[in-house]
Amino acid sequence: MSNPFFKNKGPFNILEILKVLDIDSNNFQQQKVFDVKDLLSSSNNDLTFFHSKKYRDLANMTKAAFCITTDSLKNELPKNCKPLIVKNVLVSTSIVTGKFYPDSVNDDFDNDVTDIEETILKDKIISGKNVLVGKNIKVGFNCLIGHNSIIEKNVCIGDNCSIGSNTIIRNSLIGNNVKILDNCVVGKHGFGFFPDTNKNLRYPHIGIVKIEDNCEIGCGSTIDRGSMSNTVIGKNTFLDNQIHIAHNVKIGENTIIAGQVGIAGSSVLGKNVKIGGQAGISGHLKIGDNVEIAGGSGVIKDIADNSKVMGYPAKNIRQFLKENK
Amino acid sequence: MSNPFFKNKGPFNILEILKVLDIDSNNFQQQKVFDVKDLLSSSNNDLTFFHSKKYRDLANMTKAAFCITTDSLKNELPKNCKPLIVKNVLVSTSIVTGKFYPDSVNDDFDNDVTDIEETILKDKIISGKNVLVGKNIKVGFNCLIGHNSIIEKNVCIGDNCSIGSNTIIRNSLIGNNVKILDNCVVGKHGFGFFPDTNKNLRYPHIGIVKIEDNCEIGCGSTIDRGSMSNTVIGKNTFLDNQIHIAHNVKIGENTIIAGQVGIAGSSVLGKNVKIGGQAGISGHLKIGDNVEIAGGSGVIKDIADNSKVMGYPAKNIRQFLKENK
Amino acid sequence: MSNPFFKNKGPFNILEILKVLDIDSNNFQQQKVFDVKDLLSSSNNDLTFFHSKKYRDLANMTKAAFCITTDSLKNELPKNCKPLIVKNVLVSTSIVTGKFYPDSVNDDFDNDVTDIEETILKDKIISGKNVLVGKNIKVGFNCLIGHNSIIEKNVCIGDNCSIGSNTIIRNSLIGNNVKILDNCVVGKHGFGFFPDTNKNLRYPHIGIVKIEDNCEIGCGSTIDRGSMSNTVIGKNTFLDNQIHIAHNVKIGENTIIAGQVGIAGSSVLGKNVKIGGQAGISGHLKIGDNVEIAGGSGVIKDIADNSKVMGYPAKNIRQFLKENK
Repeated sequence: MSNPFFKNKGPFNILEILKVLDIDSNNFQQQKVFDVKDLLSSSNNDLTFFHSKKYRDLANMTKAAFCITTDSLKNELPKNCKPLIVKNVLVSTSIVTGKFYPDSVNDDFDNDVTDIEETILKDKIISGKNVLVGKNIKVGFNCLIGHNSIIEKNVCIGDNCSIGSNTIIRNSLIGNNVKILDNCVVGKHGFGFFPDTNKNLRYPHIGIVKIEDNCEIGCGSTIDRGSMSNTVIGKNTFLDNQIHIAHNVKIGENTIIAGQVGIAGSSVLGKNVKIGGQAGISGHLKIGDNVEIAGGSGVIKDIADNSKVMGYPAKNIRQFLKENK
Repeated sequence: MSNPFFKNKGPFNILEILKVLDIDSNNFQQQKVFDVKDLLSSSNNDLTFFHSKKYRDLANMTKAAFCITTDSLKNELPKNCKPLIVKNVLVSTSIVTGKFYPDSVNDDFDNDVTDIEETILKDKIISGKNVLVGKNIKVGFNCLIGHNSIIEKNVCIGDNCSIGSNTIIRNSLIGNNVKILDNCVVGKHGFGFFPDTNKNLRYPHIGIVKIEDNCEIGCGSTIDRGSMSNTVIGKNTFLDNQIHIAHNVKIGENTIIAGQVGIAGSSVLGKNVKIGGQAGISGHLKIGDNVEIAGGSGVIKDIADNSKVMGYPAKNIRQFLKENK
Repeated sequence: MSNPFFKNKGPFNILEILKVLDIDSNNFQQQKVFDVKDLLSSSNNDLTFFHSKKYRDLANMTKAAFCITTDSLKNELPKNCKPLIVKNVLVSTSIVTGKFYPDSVNDDFDNDVTDIEETILKDKIISGKNVLVGKNIKVGFNCLIGHNSIIEKNVCIGDNCSIGSNTIIRNSLIGNNVKILDNCVVGKHGFGFFPDTNKNLRYPHIGIVKIEDNCEIGCGSTIDRGSMSNTVIGKNTFLDNQIHIAHNVKIGENTIIAGQVGIAGSSVLGKNVKIGGQAGISGHLKIGDNVEIAGGSGVIKDIADNSKVMGYPAKNIRQFLKENK
């Protein structure tokens, strides 16, 4: 699992799973299902999902015992994988994932925290007033945690880290020598849900936030944890104030991001990237190494290594400046 | 009144009102004035205001006893409505409104709050540490309020709501099943004032924030209350992190707004609208139903129903992409 | 010194300074160095730095006893100024400045604060719950400080000021009648450092934030203090929510800045400037008096007095609108 924190409540009997999906269980027998995984990583005790022809090759060779899919896709599955036919594969998968990982769906505040002064951490950490710490947290040597900050459950912080005041962290792995300044929120679930006219359906976020050594995160920034994978901030990457990093984003090392930048879900940035203030990067993009993105740019497609871009949509910076004299 | 919270300190004698407006009272007699309202809704005990020829038809038929206006507009008023002649109608109206609703001008912190543990709400609400609650607040069943959050005076929260940590709410009506995540500020006055070289003059904000059922508001967002009308977030609308919604904005139901979007004052959005990250919408616009606005766009004019727009200024998305290949 | 707050830990013997810069001390004798200053303001007890031919004229006449510079620039210095030859002048200057002003490099939370209720300020200030105040702070008459706010060390606040809740202020001079709303961070160091593959090197920020009389700062805003000069918000200037003002920025009086605007480091704005929502201003620019910048614009070059601009890059507003019908 990519996730060390969210507890798998399984195994569940397949008959229970059929019930929450409202599928007739006539043709099924009792069998334990241990986890929900993608087509490739499922073992023969797991359930998987298959929602698009794009993944046909993976579907052909999945080892999963069961697969949530549609009537038109089911014939792509191998014989040992039994299809669960539904109308909307992703919604049904979300429901089942939520059954295995119920803690990953909602981000209600952690009510299981304690004032750090009443814990054994008080002698190890220099902490401000009114610092709250949850269960299953580890903090290394020589760390500081500022006033009113809340380290909710499932946080691991390395050595020599400095957390500011009024900052909230949950479900995160933080390396050594990391600074997270004031008023940040790190590790909340992403903005991921299935729109529905009556009531949008949130899907589980079982990924975490991983912040590697020597990073700095500016004031008022928000870094959401991943849905099925992790959100990662690479080594020695510095973020300025009021930056938003969405779920599943991966940022390489030695990257510099100026104030108010936003990076949408699942985009992957290389190393040594420089991004000017207020730039935005759309979701599911690949930004290469050593890329420079001018402030205010809107990036809507992949950017090759070593490129310098500017504008909205962002294009070669020389071309942009020539066209906009 | 559109506002259930701000207390009308009236009635005031018209002679008192003339005094704060520095108007000679020679031609006036003692008479009680009960409220400040617009031309249409004023009754014959109220004071209204008329500052532009655009509203001539409404002025002709107002029932108000008094009207703040200019010398050049006064003849449009009916005989039973006595004009109060001033240099700047909106400034003078603001001063008088502030006299009736003094609590609506400044947003100094609510010093009348109590730790929730010392109130009867403690048995009804699952609350974190250091939660403060003001007077005149109601909270439904099965609600959560996170650590360090402050529910100032004049807040009504429905059932099954989850408020995050470090969040501040005031002057707001919140429906059922609403989530407001961490570090938000909801219900503060808007950015509305009359610029003045010596000292800008804030005008009253007697509107509230209304968040309907099933909404979600992301971390670090700010939603300002209305000046003369309300700010409204429609049913089942989801806002991502770091979004700013200005005063008087109305957003329809089932709308989805990605991170760092800003919507300026008094704009009205339809239902089923989708807005990409970092888009901005200017003030006083009308955005139709089912509109899609691409991330990073800057909308500076009305958008018809079912349109898809992109760019700055935002235009038809196909046209934009064709022109910007 | 432009800075009343950061304590100079000098004087240091030049031999100590040579040691931290890893320079051979064979040709030097014991001598006290009192401060690090720029070429012009250095006296004959100070150390200065010279990193670019642009400053040759200033270098020719500096009174400093020592100058951090390169081998190729050293001959521009007068005879009484002894060069300290290094590879990277700015990095070395940063290291030495950090030696003189160690408190100005990192912004770890102020652990030396006290609950205001336990200080003599409690009778002078109307304060909320859990308000923390540091050392060396002064507050004038008739001030309010909201719940959970933290006034760290080195803050001077004038009369009639209203600070919101959850706000953090440090290293700042605040005038009279100033409002700083909720969830702000004022006075943190800027986003200034020397990128380095292993570990970026932060440089000292010995400037402060100066907010003049009658200003208002909206919720969730961040105003960074200056590096070698101050960050200044001029008299009667109003900032909306979620604004980011970077280090060394100077904003003139009577300026109005709408939500989510960002101003990058060292830009200087005149008076009576109006900036629409989400506009961005690049660093090191000069924006004249009475300039109007439309919402969403990206300003990348200087703007003359009385101009109205729009677009990205921002240009004459009429031209922009004509080109973008």
